Amino acid sequence: MAALLRGSGTALRRSRNHVRLATGSRSMASKTPVGGYPVIATDVFIQSGKELQDLGAQILDSPAEVADKADRIITMLPSSPNVIEAYTGASGILRKVKKGTLLIDSSTIDPSVSKEMALASEKMGAVFMDAPVSGGVGAASLANLTFMVGGPEEEFTAAKELLSCMGANVLYCGQVGAGQAAKICNNMLLAIGMIGTAETMNLGIRLGLDPKLLTQILNMSSGRCWSSDTYNPVPSVMEGVPSNNNYLGGFGTTLMAKDLGLAQNTATNTKTPIPLGSLAHQIYRTMCARGYANKDFSSVFQFLREEEGQ
Amino acid sequence: MAALLRGSGTALRRSRNHVRLATGSRSMASKTPVGGYPVIATDVFIQSGKELQDLGAQILDSPAEVADKADRIITMLPSSPNVIEAYTGASGILRKVKKGTLLIDSSTIDPSVSKEMALASEKMGAVFMDAPVSGGVGAASLANLTFMVGGPEEEFTAAKELLSCMGANVLYCGQVGAGQAAKICNNMLLAIGMIGTAETMNLGIRLGLDPKLLTQILNMSSGRCWSSDTYNPVPSVMEGVPSNNNYLGGFGTTLMAKDLGLAQNTATNTKTPIPLGSLAHQIYRTMCARGYANKDFSSVFQFLREEEGQ
Amino acid sequence: MAALLRGSGTALRRSRNHVRLATGSRSMASKTPVGGYPVIATDVFIQSGKELQDLGAQILDSPAEVADKADRIITMLPSSPNVIEAYTGASGILRKVKKGTLLIDSSTIDPSVSKEMALASEKMGAVFMDAPVSGGVGAASLANLTFMVGGPEEEFTAAKELLSCMGANVLYCGQVGAGQAAKICNNMLLAIGMIGTAETMNLGIRLGLDPKLLTQILNMSSGRCWSSDTYNPVPSVMEGVPSNNNYLGGFGTTLMAKDLGLAQNTATNTKTPIPLGSLAHQIYRTMCARGYANKDFSSVFQFLREEEGQ
Amino acid sequence: MAALLRGSGTALRRSRNHVRLATGSRSMASKTPVGGYPVIATDVFIQSGKELQDLGAQILDSPAEVADKADRIITMLPSSPNVIEAYTGASGILRKVKKGTLLIDSSTIDPSVSKEMALASEKMGAVFMDAPVSGGVGAASLANLTFMVGGPEEEFTAAKELLSCMGANVLYCGQVGAGQAAKICNNMLLAIGMIGTAETMNLGIRLGLDPKLLTQILNMSSGRCWSSDTYNPVPSVMEGVPSNNNYLGGFGTTLMAKDLGLAQNTATNTKTPIPLGSLAHQIYRTMCARGYANKDFSSVFQFLREEEGQ
Repeated sequence: MAALLRGSGTALRRSRNHVRLATGSRSMASKTPVGGYPVIATDVFIQSGKELQDLGAQILDSPAEVADKADRIITMLPSSPNVIEAYTGASGILRKVKKGTLLIDSSTIDPSVSKEMALASEKMGAVFMDAPVSGGVGAASLANLTFMVGGPEEEFTAAKELLSCMGANVLYCGQVGAGQAAKICNNMLLAIGMIGTAETMNLGIRLGLDPKLLTQILNMSSGRCWSSDTYNPVPSVMEGVPSNNNYLGGFGTTLMAKDLGLAQNTATNTKTPIPLGSLAHQIYRTMCARGYANKDFSSVFQFLREEEGQ
Repeated sequence: MAALLRGSGTALRRSRNHVRLATGSRSMASKTPVGGYPVIATDVFIQSGKELQDLGAQILDSPAEVADKADRIITMLPSSPNVIEAYTGASGILRKVKKGTLLIDSSTIDPSVSKEMALASEKMGAVFMDAPVSGGVGAASLANLTFMVGGPEEEFTAAKELLSCMGANVLYCGQVGAGQAAKICNNMLLAIGMIGTAETMNLGIRLGLDPKLLTQILNMSSGRCWSSDTYNPVPSVMEGVPSNNNYLGGFGTTLMAKDLGLAQNTATNTKTPIPLGSLAHQIYRTMCARGYANKDFSSVFQFLREEEGQ
Repeated sequence: MAALLRGSGTALRRSRNHVRLATGSRSMASKTPVGGYPVIATDVFIQSGKELQDLGAQILDSPAEVADKADRIITMLPSSPNVIEAYTGASGILRKVKKGTLLIDSSTIDPSVSKEMALASEKMGAVFMDAPVSGGVGAASLANLTFMVGGPEEEFTAAKELLSCMGANVLYCGQVGAGQAAKICNNMLLAIGMIGTAETMNLGIRLGLDPKLLTQILNMSSGRCWSSDTYNPVPSVMEGVPSNNNYLGGFGTTLMAKDLGLAQNTATNTKTPIPLGSLAHQIYRTMCARGYANKDFSSVFQFLREEEGQ
Repeated sequence: MAALLRGSGTALRRSRNHVRLATGSRSMASKTPVGGYPVIATDVFIQSGKELQDLGAQILDSPAEVADKADRIITMLPSSPNVIEAYTGASGILRKVKKGTLLIDSSTIDPSVSKEMALASEKMGAVFMDAPVSGGVGAASLANLTFMVGGPEEEFTAAKELLSCMGANVLYCGQVGAGQAAKICNNMLLAIGMIGTAETMNLGIRLGLDPKLLTQILNMSSGRCWSSDTYNPVPSVMEGVPSNNNYLGGFGTTLMAKDLGLAQNTATNTKTPIPLGSLAHQIYRTMCARGYANKDFSSVFQFLREEEGQ
């Protein structure tokens, strides 16, 4: 999951072995210049820029200006329209991008938008790759994120070198858009597994089972999944997860609803039936409508749980 | 999963350190007397009885007769009515059960029926425990099944001694019915994970991802689950699973639909919302109506997959 | 719908052209002796009995005593266990029922329980019919309810004569249990139509449509249904419906969840896939868990509606 | 429903009280010049153009040429990309549209595309209205279609005059896109009602009810909807509907899946939860994958029905 990174944008520039991190917009993605490379950055939120500046980054006013100075740029933005603007807008990257620049977009967006950006970049002589990221706050601060990369295979080595500064796992997924596809698929299955785990734990508790014991049984049986063994949604079952902290932190319900919206859209466009994925989407949408928008997505356990006194 | 064991009934008798396996009904659960114990058995299918006889078991005509001779009895039957009949019917176990007999029912049934049987057994001075089993054909032939046991905690050691002959894992889950509850919960989450994995893999393929690569990515990310890493539903992704063998063998769609029916019933009775579990149930019901009844439950991938030429 | 009548039980006795209304249990079904017939009644809530007494009814202590004096008995109880007790319990109707007595159960319960009661009644020489009722508070006070009757066809005329005192529509549905089946089917489709209407109206409003105009368009098009044209869930669209009165009165979410539980159980038992009915059930279950238990079932509009400020 | 009209495009020109019908693309919408007006038309399928020519229409080569000669143009195209091309493409209407021309698009597409087309038209001094149509083959041949119109209120009278030649009902729904919104909402509720009716009828039949009798009961009760009383999905219940003709004709499953895709997209974009609408979408998608693509959408009854012999 990418909670920390959402709503943020970064750009890295390598020049004679120096890479500069530059936020493309909004909030800050990574708190420190990574891998020892100097960083050029921009962010629509001035405060975020200042924080980066304190860490040694050079702050510029727009994506176009960053593109004028850097030949390795990483962007990380909240949604498709932001990406379109950051690349093709009036002060977007493609206005001043240099030939041969490597553009890596780590936003989670519709794969068809990634493909559009790749085409537009190609016309300017630049290479565009999509590289959405997975892993939460903890993973980010430990440079332990997973990047799922789509784009020309011959450029993957260069992308990997850069992304390895931030993530332990950098995976090549296929042509442009394949990184998005992999991310969307993973998060859809994650959402299904989480709601399924929440339902199952709630049912077990109502049938008289001890939640810790039930967790153990599931985890040594065929019900085992990441949501049961690593990120259990039931309070007091596991240490260090949002369910044990009033569902604060972690990966917000709104963000999960957004990613499931991408899954929904791509499934509709490809005429693929996703009955559980689609219902998971509706459940997270309903949760957003009922006050769970900013809680961790594992709070679906609380949403489904019978109220006290019933 | 318990595909091999469904529709079968076994009874074990211990007498001076000798335990005898006795099929309570229908088909045979285990092809050989286990743990070196002599076995007394009964089965409504004469042929099954004969096979056991060839293996050295003594075959009797009814559960009542087995109860007259054995003081450790294991039953394994297809559904609640069969269990009710085998215990409380005209020639049922409780007609001739001896005081102190340990009754272990390894059927997967409604926990409320397990509780009824326990009460009826208690009146006769016998101890009833529910111990549904998980694990498929392979696990059974390797004595590598998992038993989930409910009943009086002080009797668990005795039950475990017996069940350990057949299963590597014997887990104490709580009071009578808790074994059923754990089994039902596990299989509900399993069904959700399987359909979710099938949807996700299909979506990924339609988005252009290689299924083997997508499987790898999911398995190192938060989408990971038993259905993705151990029992993948996509042909040619994994060796030795039903998806690689035309969905033959394994755990049939009908059986999964039955277990989800138990989950549905217990959820309805306890007023627990199970949106995904309930939809999973309906999907397996629909598959049974469309010709998938006898295929492995991972064939949901095939059910959801776009037809050739579309 | 039968909001007013739930949790109540009535029994009518005809003797020399005199029919006596007798509550079988709990709360009162009908506030006045109907059709001019004298009434014998019983109710576990003493206060309900007193109210009937004030209206001229004779109050007895148990169903058995009513059965001793009446030869036409109507019961209306909250759920299957209550019906089983009222008929076959220690002081139940069948203890003292007279040969030839007509027993009409207007509870909404599992059809299989109706069949059991019919068999038990037949053994005592009495005739049992199931006759669940549809229509709400308004319909009840106007004797405008709909009864759906199952049982021997040759007894339908006698049942209709009695039930016509309370309901404008008395429909013969088939053998015993058929009344329950029809009621369960109707309410399942009602629940689906209501949630569907709520989703549709909410979507239309979010797309900028005026809710009154959208209602008109749906009602003259193929989206038309009872929930859109008679019981619209959106406040201020229609007069005299619960949505226009803070979802007070009407047919409670808990009761709808109960009826959908019956649909779920019968569908599971008959292996019938009901994907939307099943999801409707889960939505009403979730609403009960989130504070909507006592609101009218049309409050699903409010449940799905985006919160202010989002 | 608009089965006949899908995949077709028409343009009408009025000149000195003469309106000319012009197909914008693909197949023909209306077989005869309507209302006595002369017709100018274009269609990508030459054969369709010829048929119109035989009926007296003047056939041109492209939408741009039609726009050069007509000042009242009606388009009816299969999906959003076709509409975008027909209006803004290299030989699109807006290349040669005259100031003051009334453009009416009767395609069923995403409301946001309608809004884009309206903006682009406005820049050229033309007026764009969306007017998707409802009603099937029969309604079309009887000029009995329903048009749902969005656009400037002051232009509605002019639009209505033209559309009244083809449809009995012409409804003003609000600003541009409102016609699409109303159509999408109606068809979503229709799909939910149809699947709900199919599930309910199947459940009732499995519970032993006669399907004609159950239909009667539903239609006089709160389960009543268009799919139960006008377009019943069960064979032999009703005359003159696709269910009585092997689900031939009517409104195809593919088309319903497409409209539900639009509902899904608009719901996702507006963050509106549509649990049943979304599941209905997935069911129609699955049906397309299982061989029901070209059957009438009421064939969901057949899809859910238990197979013979089970």
